[in-house]
Amino acid sequence: MAENEAPRSLKKSVYDVIFGTETPAGRWFDIGLIIVILASVGIIALDSVESIHDRFPGALYTAEWFFTALFTLEFLTRIWCSPNPRAYIFSFYGIVDLLSILPTYLGLILPNANNLVVIRILRVLRIFRILRLFRFINEANLLSRSLYASRRKIIVFMFGVASIIVIFGSLMYIVEGPVHGFSSLPRSIYWAIVTISTVGYGDITPQTSLGQAVAALAMITSYAIIAIPTGIISAEMMNEHQRMKSSRRCGNCERSGHETDADYCRHCGAQLPEEII
Amino acid sequence: MAENEAPRSLKKSVYDVIFGTETPAGRWFDIGLIIVILASVGIIALDSVESIHDRFPGALYTAEWFFTALFTLEFLTRIWCSPNPRAYIFSFYGIVDLLSILPTYLGLILPNANNLVVIRILRVLRIFRILRLFRFINEANLLSRSLYASRRKIIVFMFGVASIIVIFGSLMYIVEGPVHGFSSLPRSIYWAIVTISTVGYGDITPQTSLGQAVAALAMITSYAIIAIPTGIISAEMMNEHQRMKSSRRCGNCERSGHETDADYCRHCGAQLPEEII
Amino acid sequence: MAENEAPRSLKKSVYDVIFGTETPAGRWFDIGLIIVILASVGIIALDSVESIHDRFPGALYTAEWFFTALFTLEFLTRIWCSPNPRAYIFSFYGIVDLLSILPTYLGLILPNANNLVVIRILRVLRIFRILRLFRFINEANLLSRSLYASRRKIIVFMFGVASIIVIFGSLMYIVEGPVHGFSSLPRSIYWAIVTISTVGYGDITPQTSLGQAVAALAMITSYAIIAIPTGIISAEMMNEHQRMKSSRRCGNCERSGHETDADYCRHCGAQLPEEII
Amino acid sequence: MAENEAPRSLKKSVYDVIFGTETPAGRWFDIGLIIVILASVGIIALDSVESIHDRFPGALYTAEWFFTALFTLEFLTRIWCSPNPRAYIFSFYGIVDLLSILPTYLGLILPNANNLVVIRILRVLRIFRILRLFRFINEANLLSRSLYASRRKIIVFMFGVASIIVIFGSLMYIVEGPVHGFSSLPRSIYWAIVTISTVGYGDITPQTSLGQAVAALAMITSYAIIAIPTGIISAEMMNEHQRMKSSRRCGNCERSGHETDADYCRHCGAQLPEEII
Repeated sequence: MAENEAPRSLKKSVYDVIFGTETPAGRWFDIGLIIVILASVGIIALDSVESIHDRFPGALYTAEWFFTALFTLEFLTRIWCSPNPRAYIFSFYGIVDLLSILPTYLGLILPNANNLVVIRILRVLRIFRILRLFRFINEANLLSRSLYASRRKIIVFMFGVASIIVIFGSLMYIVEGPVHGFSSLPRSIYWAIVTISTVGYGDITPQTSLGQAVAALAMITSYAIIAIPTGIISAEMMNEHQRMKSSRRCGNCERSGHETDADYCRHCGAQLPEEII
Repeated sequence: MAENEAPRSLKKSVYDVIFGTETPAGRWFDIGLIIVILASVGIIALDSVESIHDRFPGALYTAEWFFTALFTLEFLTRIWCSPNPRAYIFSFYGIVDLLSILPTYLGLILPNANNLVVIRILRVLRIFRILRLFRFINEANLLSRSLYASRRKIIVFMFGVASIIVIFGSLMYIVEGPVHGFSSLPRSIYWAIVTISTVGYGDITPQTSLGQAVAALAMITSYAIIAIPTGIISAEMMNEHQRMKSSRRCGNCERSGHETDADYCRHCGAQLPEEII
Repeated sequence: MAENEAPRSLKKSVYDVIFGTETPAGRWFDIGLIIVILASVGIIALDSVESIHDRFPGALYTAEWFFTALFTLEFLTRIWCSPNPRAYIFSFYGIVDLLSILPTYLGLILPNANNLVVIRILRVLRIFRILRLFRFINEANLLSRSLYASRRKIIVFMFGVASIIVIFGSLMYIVEGPVHGFSSLPRSIYWAIVTISTVGYGDITPQTSLGQAVAALAMITSYAIIAIPTGIISAEMMNEHQRMKSSRRCGNCERSGHETDADYCRHCGAQLPEEII
Repeated sequence: MAENEAPRSLKKSVYDVIFGTETPAGRWFDIGLIIVILASVGIIALDSVESIHDRFPGALYTAEWFFTALFTLEFLTRIWCSPNPRAYIFSFYGIVDLLSILPTYLGLILPNANNLVVIRILRVLRIFRILRLFRFINEANLLSRSLYASRRKIIVFMFGVASIIVIFGSLMYIVEGPVHGFSSLPRSIYWAIVTISTVGYGDITPQTSLGQAVAALAMITSYAIIAIPTGIISAEMMNEHQRMKSSRRCGNCERSGHETDADYCRHCGAQLPEEII
């Protein structure tokens, strides 16, 4: 960017503010946008409470249109200033941005389309940009890299859990049967998921002694089950820690093995390079 | 196999397709079989929903017979092409395969045997073969080896948990008694399992102050309890990671200590051998 | 024992059988005793189910007296053959053994003392002897040593959890109040324990919006909370693993660092000493 | 303190007893204070149970005034003896101390202010001083340092969880709708928190098949979710262990790498310095 001698065009400046986070203006825009998104989500949440909806119908309707106008302006500006509008429009955030303004306009034509304004809530995903603003991006990367590195183990684990759930669900369907609330196989499998994940709503519970014995077995199995993903992720994170330690090298004495939060080399006292996680 | 000069017999070819996963045909057969199994399980699940069962009685009955015919054909082919049919028939999968077709035939003689068709769901266990297809077998091995290596610790843990459950269950039977739903000792122990595993259906809950105090103690105990299997498995997985690191050796410079996902030796740059997990 | 030339007295032999696990007879006695204990506990459990109790009143009463007679005989034999009867009688197991026979005799004098026969269930703790029989004692030691080593951290953790529970309980007592089931401070604290431990019976649930917000905060807090004991125990177990590795030394080449399940030295191939965990 | 030749003033002595834990008197004062606080909290808890409140109205009222008088005396003494009273009054504990006596006095003027006496429960936080008394401060520091070191990762994790919760909550609001208890968006989000945290009260449960499928997905997601904070904290604690090992150095032979619970150097046998955690 420094070598860009020509005066920066308005389009480029707007692009840097709206899409970038390096300039102060870009950072303030992102913070402002997140506040506006949270406000609009708050309005949608309030609007969904019947007593509030009935008390302030005008104010909430106005607010909905206000945010729709704002987001429409933002959407159009993004398309205008983007060097590759197609790429933006068909990106994940582009689709979310469009979906968040569409329902209000559709509500003018179709009577019930307004209800779909709830989709706007997907915009809260923009909040992940705040991680970039406050330099949490390293931690976010570490977490997602750990999850990514253990994805194959988690898939295998999910296969195993799915089999256990299907088998316990079928077993309970046979043992308890429709008279005790296990009215169909899908419902029994739903019960098995509720039980094995230790959520335990209690909307479907075993009534017979044999059913309670099978349920008890499922719960004890859930102990071993919950331990496995935790073990996978813990081991992967330990691994990441050690990898980071051995990969960061002092620029002065070339020695590695520094703590992940060290700022100075413990052998020669030279400043360590920023962690590149 | 390469030294087998004679033309391969039909029986051997069929065996390779049905039992093997090395040939493309064998892989496609497995994928097809898993799709058919999932479809048949889906039909059984739909059939168990009363409203669907009543709307399409003919179609579902036909589907049941269609899958039974298909699985019978598969079962007979497996017996025919297997070099050792006895071993197959009495293997775990052989028994599951037989049990999954028997109920439909029995339904012709006995009126209610059809309900046992749910047993067919056990065939979903064949889905584990898909792990072999998509090279997830290393991860599956690592997980099962970690579980196997910690089996003795988990057994000891289960002994401890069983004792705690029996004691809390008996205590609540004395404290709360039949009038508050703790109608028998087995039922109180069922309550203890539901509580200590943190499922918490709420179908049986302590009513007296003393009972609530005992229940609170049981829940606090459950904290320490849930931490133990997780700790066991985490430590075992870390161990596996380190073992793999130190056991993989560069073929060029003979040095070990490579990351588990490294492809090249970090000392001499030579390609590392495939991980043998 | 080998240097004991004199013929072993009957008392000593009986002692070795009843208290020891080194002789085959001692091992069989322990296995037999555990079976008898489990049977007697099973009878007590069945007796507590009203429908079974009413159907077989005579048989269950006979069984109770049969086990009482057997345990009385065992108790008296233990006292007789013990070199230090006082120590046995006032030991934990001695008191449990006495308590498990007393209620039946008291039932002859006091009408309702029979109900206390449930205390006999404490005898299941003898099942921990089975760990010694099947050489699980190393694993049991490792687990209890890990728990012991982390006891101080767990106590600190429990202090923190207790404070969080008391504060959330009080907060909900103020926010929701008696009209919504939070009828007293102890009951609100019971609710907080049920929630923070993620048991979640649902017998007391927040009804107001503010109460649900506070409850949501408590549940999110429970995430961080459940992670702490698991982290403590995982780290401690990893530590034990490493300690074991570095403490086991080959008797031939004096090198350490062997895997915990290794049987031969990886440097010289000599057999490694039994793990002394 | 040793060089303070002049006779210590009464103010200084009282300060050492009330604020310090180094002198025996200071320790006894803290223990006594904690007992009094627990007693006063016990009285408040009993008073909140309606049946007890109605039976002993006079005694409980007297007890409330007794503890208020005691705490007022303590509060005034702390102000008097503190070298910097302002700093104490506006410190966290100073505010808590004031809030814990205010409601009783306000009750003389305003009729319902007495109910606020529950605030006094915040004084249980003083119990953390007991950690200092019994030398648990090292463990408390290790735990809080681990939590502090992983704070950024936990914040990122919380962002992710919040997004998942908002999205599942909105989805269920659309899928199930007000007729099945998901009466508003905030209530649906409350349901999502109850489910994802595996508390599972069962006060709001999905009724439709599609809703149960979405809920099942949320529960399976909760598996991966619960594993992440545990992995973060486990890895951080392992790190702390290793850091402590490598940072403690024998004063005699200068070698490090000692177990965290070692008292003597394993290389030369010299006594190791106290762990400075």
